[in-house]
Amino acid sequence: MGASGHVGGVARGELQRRGHEVIAVSRSSDPAVDTSDPESIRTLLETVGDVDAIVVAVGSVPFKPVTELTREDYTAGFVSKVLGQLEFVTQGLDRVRDGGSITLTTGVLSREPVPAASAAALANGAVESFVISAAPELPRGIRINAVSPNVLANSPHYHDAFAGMTPVTDEAVAAAYVRSVEGNVTGRVLAV
Amino acid sequence: MGASGHVGGVARGELQRRGHEVIAVSRSSDPAVDTSDPESIRTLLETVGDVDAIVVAVGSVPFKPVTELTREDYTAGFVSKVLGQLEFVTQGLDRVRDGGSITLTTGVLSREPVPAASAAALANGAVESFVISAAPELPRGIRINAVSPNVLANSPHYHDAFAGMTPVTDEAVAAAYVRSVEGNVTGRVLAV
Repeated sequence: MGASGHVGGVARGELQRRGHEVIAVSRSSDPAVDTSDPESIRTLLETVGDVDAIVVAVGSVPFKPVTELTREDYTAGFVSKVLGQLEFVTQGLDRVRDGGSITLTTGVLSREPVPAASAAALANGAVESFVISAAPELPRGIRINAVSPNVLANSPHYHDAFAGMTPVTDEAVAAAYVRSVEGNVTGRVLAV
Repeated sequence: MGASGHVGGVARGELQRRGHEVIAVSRSSDPAVDTSDPESIRTLLETVGDVDAIVVAVGSVPFKPVTELTREDYTAGFVSKVLGQLEFVTQGLDRVRDGGSITLTTGVLSREPVPAASAAALANGAVESFVISAAPELPRGIRINAVSPNVLANSPHYHDAFAGMTPVTDEAVAAAYVRSVEGNVTGRVLAV
């Protein structure tokens, strides 16, 4: 889910290269999926049926200085990036086969300050702590992790905001998704 | 804010002992403050006027196994523990004097799994990452931190859920609030 984004596309490409059958969906796929709408996710999951793994890389969050961020901004980020991903746990868990995995996506903003990113930090921190806490309670050996990349080398328009932070390659990001899907880790924030 | 709770009461008591004039409010004070209602917080802040520091220890979150937690549960925890505290930033910042501080309250659940605590983890993680990101953007030398205690020695009814984790004394919790209010740290999660 989120295959039209850069990070989701990287995950999809690498998992396909490794022989996984990937059902790639996004807000612009056919049919389109709107992760802010639980019914849209329900329809997707019913259409797809059982899977070995779910990978989610979605969510948009308002970027403003903290002195300008409002209750509505924090809520918008929460609905989009937190609830939009967690819906794949609440609804998706029953669709994941025994021993499968769910991988959510966060980012370095949860742990490092960057200008205008407090609402994004909030959303990322929420998802990361959720993953840590949820993992031991998942049934049937299902694992859950968050992939949390630094700024992407291939998204240079963001580099100024991340001054002095080392951009990460698509290969490094892809490896984290592979580890979450094929490895044995659970309850981990896979920082890239 | 939250002085009727155990943690808020500990913070209040210690700050008073150290000579601070503490205006202690809670959902049961007179007038009562409802942190789920931005207007209630607005009224409080207008009544109190300018302050050197704001300390917030509020928020309730549903506790259920992750397989039972719903979108409504996550949202309820977010509104109560995240927005209920952040409102003291969005609304309270202008009420804090130059060089003052805002202290929010989280807990160990953001970083350690405990049964039935995924919604609480989410809320705590959100507030902690927010604090890290917001601190460099606060104006006029105002600082912001989160105090994040482990299970409290004086709340023994919770100890079974925190098996093997070391309960923390009221004195240790109080010290973290003192450090946030009187010290020079900002953008920190003060783990106790």
